[in-house]
Amino acid sequence: MAKPHVKEQIVTAGLNLLHSRGFNATSVQDITEAAAVPKGSFYNHFASKEALGLEVLQRYRAAAAGYLDVLDDASQAPKARLRAYFDLLIGANTATDYNCGCLLGNFSSELSTQIPAMRDALHLAYDEWAAALTGVIAEGQRDGSIAAPQPALELAHFVIDAWQGAVLHAKASHSRAPLDRYADMVLNRILL
Amino acid sequence: MAKPHVKEQIVTAGLNLLHSRGFNATSVQDITEAAAVPKGSFYNHFASKEALGLEVLQRYRAAAAGYLDVLDDASQAPKARLRAYFDLLIGANTATDYNCGCLLGNFSSELSTQIPAMRDALHLAYDEWAAALTGVIAEGQRDGSIAAPQPALELAHFVIDAWQGAVLHAKASHSRAPLDRYADMVLNRILL
Repeated sequence: MAKPHVKEQIVTAGLNLLHSRGFNATSVQDITEAAAVPKGSFYNHFASKEALGLEVLQRYRAAAAGYLDVLDDASQAPKARLRAYFDLLIGANTATDYNCGCLLGNFSSELSTQIPAMRDALHLAYDEWAAALTGVIAEGQRDGSIAAPQPALELAHFVIDAWQGAVLHAKASHSRAPLDRYADMVLNRILL
Repeated sequence: MAKPHVKEQIVTAGLNLLHSRGFNATSVQDITEAAAVPKGSFYNHFASKEALGLEVLQRYRAAAAGYLDVLDDASQAPKARLRAYFDLLIGANTATDYNCGCLLGNFSSELSTQIPAMRDALHLAYDEWAAALTGVIAEGQRDGSIAAPQPALELAHFVIDAWQGAVLHAKASHSRAPLDRYADMVLNRILL
């Protein structure tokens, strides 16, 4: 019988391992061992490792969505909200010593061509993320605090894509410098 | 006996597979089959798949370095040279239907923590790439065609990191749009 707490343990361990080690470097057995559940129980809950990967992506996105709340803080100016948001993202990367990167970026690189449903989910995730940033950028353009003349949605997509690249570089250089450079360039050059 | 043409066939097939499929999704047997060489011959030339990965990265970098030549074309203004360079990069991604991404970014994501020597090689690759872009950006700053006041080396690093993110998004969305947006934002906003 499929036990809900077993499924939860698998998703939690799966998110941790797929994020830190990568999808193809992690076996189902690695995940069930880390979850401390019988290997056979995996397939009571998931048709495949790919199916777990899709659920893990949604779990990751739900957690990351919590960071977006600071973008709605009307007591702060638009760029102060963006600064606070970037600080949260940088803090999350610092907490893993720059070793994990962003699961969206990792899966984009590793799984876009391997799992068609993952590519669809990633494409949607980028669009929804950009939509969340568009509002605060447009607000800054309206009140004149952001001078960039490009459409807010285009700026939002660029800002997110540039973040993904900064995270890759932080991982490869094992350093915070690319993330600080990113925040400085976005706030003091692109969205000046 | 280690035969040089066998090694060459392994490197060529390895570059193709590690770039298009990823490191951990590719086995040594996949590579020797694609190279049409005996599986056992692999270990006459490489101590491990990791060792091949490092050689493949250098091969990839040597090929990509050819694109950098347009940055030295003194008959063109600095931003025209950068535009030509981005066009070459976008063309290379279009040729693979956005399915492969950049090997530097892929390996940064997948292998930074898995292979310490790879992390060192990637870190160095980013630094050398940034050094190659710094000259043309500094030239544009000197002649006034690039207004960005940030140090040229910082701009170069940011421009490269943002490219990596654009490539990930192109892969996930299976579309050229993130690459065109990237070139527009870099040339018409960051290096305006």
